[in-house]
Amino acid sequence: MKIRVLTLFPKMFECLNESIIGRAIRNGIIDFRAVDIREYSKDKHHKCDDTPYGGGAGMVMTPQPIFDCINAVDPEHEYLRVYMSAQGETLCDGLSRRLGTIENLLILCGHYEGVDRRVIELCIDKEISVGDYILSGGELAAMTVIDSAARFVDGVLGSAQSHEDESFSGGLLEYPQYTRPPEFMGLKVPEVLLNGNHKEIAKYRLEQSVKLTAERRADLLANKDGRNGN
Amino acid sequence: MKIRVLTLFPKMFECLNESIIGRAIRNGIIDFRAVDIREYSKDKHHKCDDTPYGGGAGMVMTPQPIFDCINAVDPEHEYLRVYMSAQGETLCDGLSRRLGTIENLLILCGHYEGVDRRVIELCIDKEISVGDYILSGGELAAMTVIDSAARFVDGVLGSAQSHEDESFSGGLLEYPQYTRPPEFMGLKVPEVLLNGNHKEIAKYRLEQSVKLTAERRADLLANKDGRNGN
Repeated sequence: MKIRVLTLFPKMFECLNESIIGRAIRNGIIDFRAVDIREYSKDKHHKCDDTPYGGGAGMVMTPQPIFDCINAVDPEHEYLRVYMSAQGETLCDGLSRRLGTIENLLILCGHYEGVDRRVIELCIDKEISVGDYILSGGELAAMTVIDSAARFVDGVLGSAQSHEDESFSGGLLEYPQYTRPPEFMGLKVPEVLLNGNHKEIAKYRLEQSVKLTAERRADLLANKDGRNGN
Repeated sequence: MKIRVLTLFPKMFECLNESIIGRAIRNGIIDFRAVDIREYSKDKHHKCDDTPYGGGAGMVMTPQPIFDCINAVDPEHEYLRVYMSAQGETLCDGLSRRLGTIENLLILCGHYEGVDRRVIELCIDKEISVGDYILSGGELAAMTVIDSAARFVDGVLGSAQSHEDESFSGGLLEYPQYTRPPEFMGLKVPEVLLNGNHKEIAKYRLEQSVKLTAERRADLLANKDGRNGN
């Protein structure tokens, strides 16, 4: 999977090196580069923002540096071009899975009050939001998309099974996890997890998932068609 | 605002230095520290994870290092103690605003398959999720919470007005933004934004917000009680 991120803050993406994504980059499974939009500005001071037409607080990113940057990175439009935006489609497990199958992914990060709408109309295929809250830039949102999608790229996770046990994979929240010691501060690991009966363990975990989902996210149960996967 | 993040990957948080949060830290408005859970492990190899009871892929973070780390950082329980988890309350603009009023915020980041459930029961006040997708760790989610909440801390944003014009602040998506030049690649800035009539501009922007919200997020309109704020 080839990923290009267009940003005013390429250094922020160094933190991906610490995670499983970093390992996938080092292993050649993911080809990642953060491209500095500022290098494409034709302004003599490399300016990339200006005040919004019509007034209002904050600055808006100008179209020229973004337009030229996108066309330099993706001259043939071989990438799915995504813009991180609160106005976009909300990221969910299903969208992350679909993005994990994309061969070439380009992500544009806005900053300040966002980017000039015309560059979205001219260059962007899809707007994605990570949730109903405002971030100071698209960078954390882009890293979130990359991390959640890359998990579905073959070879990124250690075991093929790992992402099938997670919350949302079967439409339910994940069951509670326990590890050693068997007793900690007076609290014991549930007996069923210690007896080695895999059928009973699977039954217990499914019950716990359903209970937790009903208590905390009844909306997920309402949308659910089957219970396989957890 | 005092923020402590407990993590196995403290270096990831260096990327916050690049954003408005970094400026707020340097200005003393936010007192931030990422604490390495590994330093609190009593295991001779500083091990912090083990296989899950009952089987399954991945590793679970053991309770002892987390328990001791939390109690070292917050011995008097003066912090709101948050655990980033897909099973938590979904972050939204309203929750970010409330978190922005918290004086002391502690965020525990899980990694791998998460943390032993007993340490959540013993130490955590609130579980928060950033969305219905799986991340390889709580670190990006913690940064998302910090960035979205810190915007509401006095002095973090340049202008007090800035976060009132954003998506969700009035229950609507934000109107499209434009900046110079007035014409780019044949696309013109809407005339109304150039004429300086503030009443007409406000009317146009509200119409655009309502239209965009109706097209893309009718669910937000259904939840809306008033239209002030945009």
